[in-house]
Amino acid sequence: MNMKGIKIFSPATVANLSCGFDVIGLALEIPVDEIFLYKSNNPGIRINKIIHGTSFSLPNDPKKNVVFVALQSLLKKYQQQQKFDREKKIGFEIELIKNIHPGSGIGSSAASAAGIVFGANILLGKPFSTMQLIRFAMEGERLASGTAHADNVAPAIMGGVTLVRSYKPLDITRLHTPNELWISIIHPQIEIKTSDAREILKQKILMTDAIRQWGNIGALVAGLYQENYELISRSLEDVIVEPIRAMLIPAFYELKIRCKEIGALGGGISGSGPSVFMLSKGNHTAKAVTQVMNHVYSPLKVDYKTYTSPINKQGVKWDEIF
Amino acid sequence: MNMKGIKIFSPATVANLSCGFDVIGLALEIPVDEIFLYKSNNPGIRINKIIHGTSFSLPNDPKKNVVFVALQSLLKKYQQQQKFDREKKIGFEIELIKNIHPGSGIGSSAASAAGIVFGANILLGKPFSTMQLIRFAMEGERLASGTAHADNVAPAIMGGVTLVRSYKPLDITRLHTPNELWISIIHPQIEIKTSDAREILKQKILMTDAIRQWGNIGALVAGLYQENYELISRSLEDVIVEPIRAMLIPAFYELKIRCKEIGALGGGISGSGPSVFMLSKGNHTAKAVTQVMNHVYSPLKVDYKTYTSPINKQGVKWDEIF
Repeated sequence: MNMKGIKIFSPATVANLSCGFDVIGLALEIPVDEIFLYKSNNPGIRINKIIHGTSFSLPNDPKKNVVFVALQSLLKKYQQQQKFDREKKIGFEIELIKNIHPGSGIGSSAASAAGIVFGANILLGKPFSTMQLIRFAMEGERLASGTAHADNVAPAIMGGVTLVRSYKPLDITRLHTPNELWISIIHPQIEIKTSDAREILKQKILMTDAIRQWGNIGALVAGLYQENYELISRSLEDVIVEPIRAMLIPAFYELKIRCKEIGALGGGISGSGPSVFMLSKGNHTAKAVTQVMNHVYSPLKVDYKTYTSPINKQGVKWDEIF
Repeated sequence: MNMKGIKIFSPATVANLSCGFDVIGLALEIPVDEIFLYKSNNPGIRINKIIHGTSFSLPNDPKKNVVFVALQSLLKKYQQQQKFDREKKIGFEIELIKNIHPGSGIGSSAASAAGIVFGANILLGKPFSTMQLIRFAMEGERLASGTAHADNVAPAIMGGVTLVRSYKPLDITRLHTPNELWISIIHPQIEIKTSDAREILKQKILMTDAIRQWGNIGALVAGLYQENYELISRSLEDVIVEPIRAMLIPAFYELKIRCKEIGALGGGISGSGPSVFMLSKGNHTAKAVTQVMNHVYSPLKVDYKTYTSPINKQGVKWDEIF
């Protein structure tokens, strides 16, 4: 391997895909975090530079950075596996260009964590499986949100639409992704902490609501495989979490109603918010939907950002640096 | 149309497919109810003969028979649509060979209701859509169980594996059916009323359980489309209804454990019981699984019957009678 290093493009993701709360997520083409990662003979992990693509700050202590924690988790496992070669010194140098706003609800921490372990795996000669990479990246998520969840790192690493069937044991499958499925995102720049968004949820729910939700999930998965956009549209209904969390997001219902009027298939809260996503069939409709998002938010006294993206079928992408 | 009548073969079905409680069902090749249906100019619906393939009795009053109620519902709609031709007299003569034991939990009432409306639709020149036929047959279910549910009549009419996404509006989709999926059924001849089986369920459930259930449903649907038998197997887990209803069925857990040991993918309670189903990959394993069911039940003081069947992809079948 003559690579000096690797440049990684790690995508934003939408978790909690409507009825697929806690289980279904998907990867976007934009925005992406960019990571320059170099393998060195100098043991340890060094974050040499963080360039902030948007206005926010990350923890000064590198050990509180998700890329550090995720990479450390990978490196520890690597060194356990290479016992016979314990003397071999391995370290990593990192430069991170952070384009995905932390706290946006589109998988900012997941993108950094997924990108770094994906890149390190390539530089080490691919000793780890996709499922192992997801586990390492989940350690970054544990740092960021208190829970080692997989619903953002899985689509970031695997691409497309993913389903986390179970955590014990970890069981993740990639679903079929229709070609014409596009996503519009609006990120209102207000703060919602994942932990707060969790706390307002009920511990018990009505059986009738749960049945409606799992009917919708089954139909959403079937709709993806059938490439049946009408079925996808009808299935994008969350009767359990959205009614509670919607109050956290300014103009949520107006957004949803007006986006559907212009042709969106449906949507909901991305992750634990504050971003809102809408799915559409085709680029043209998706752009019109994003435009409507702008119209709804421009009169409000809230800063916001919008994105229009196809589904990213590949997930993390990379270039060699020679 | 020179047909004198039609002979209909309407299949048994498994509803409440494990994690797919209340939403996923599938059709069997055996057992089937056989119905001879003749159109006549003598208005009214007459059940001329009921042959009992097994030892049980049906209501003497024909108006309390599901075939009568389902067919009446179809005929009423037909006559509304044919207003211009009100004078035209239409009636039906029925002979019913009842092979599916009422109260068995494999869709006995649904088979009769689905078969009769399917057959009548053909004799009338197919004026009704599949979704309309399901609605008529659901009226039979309302009579039989107090609820107009669709999770048996849908697979009986559509064939294969079906998913009821919603009742309001009625939204049913047919899922992909892997070719090698076989079913073993054991019907312990004890009585469980659907209404009783409903009453013991909880009205509220834990959010964490609900999430686990919908992760499983999503993965089960994905497994069917991927023809991924291992994923299907892992997804056949019901953490909500089965733990409560299992107590109603003698030796339920022993059945389940021993069937899985011999190679069954998984299974659960069929409908609201008492039948238990197991899915297998291939005829050979399915037969071995049915054999194990026999071994588990033969020492018990309970009469029982077993079946081994592929999935019935067509649903109701028929022959013309000239």
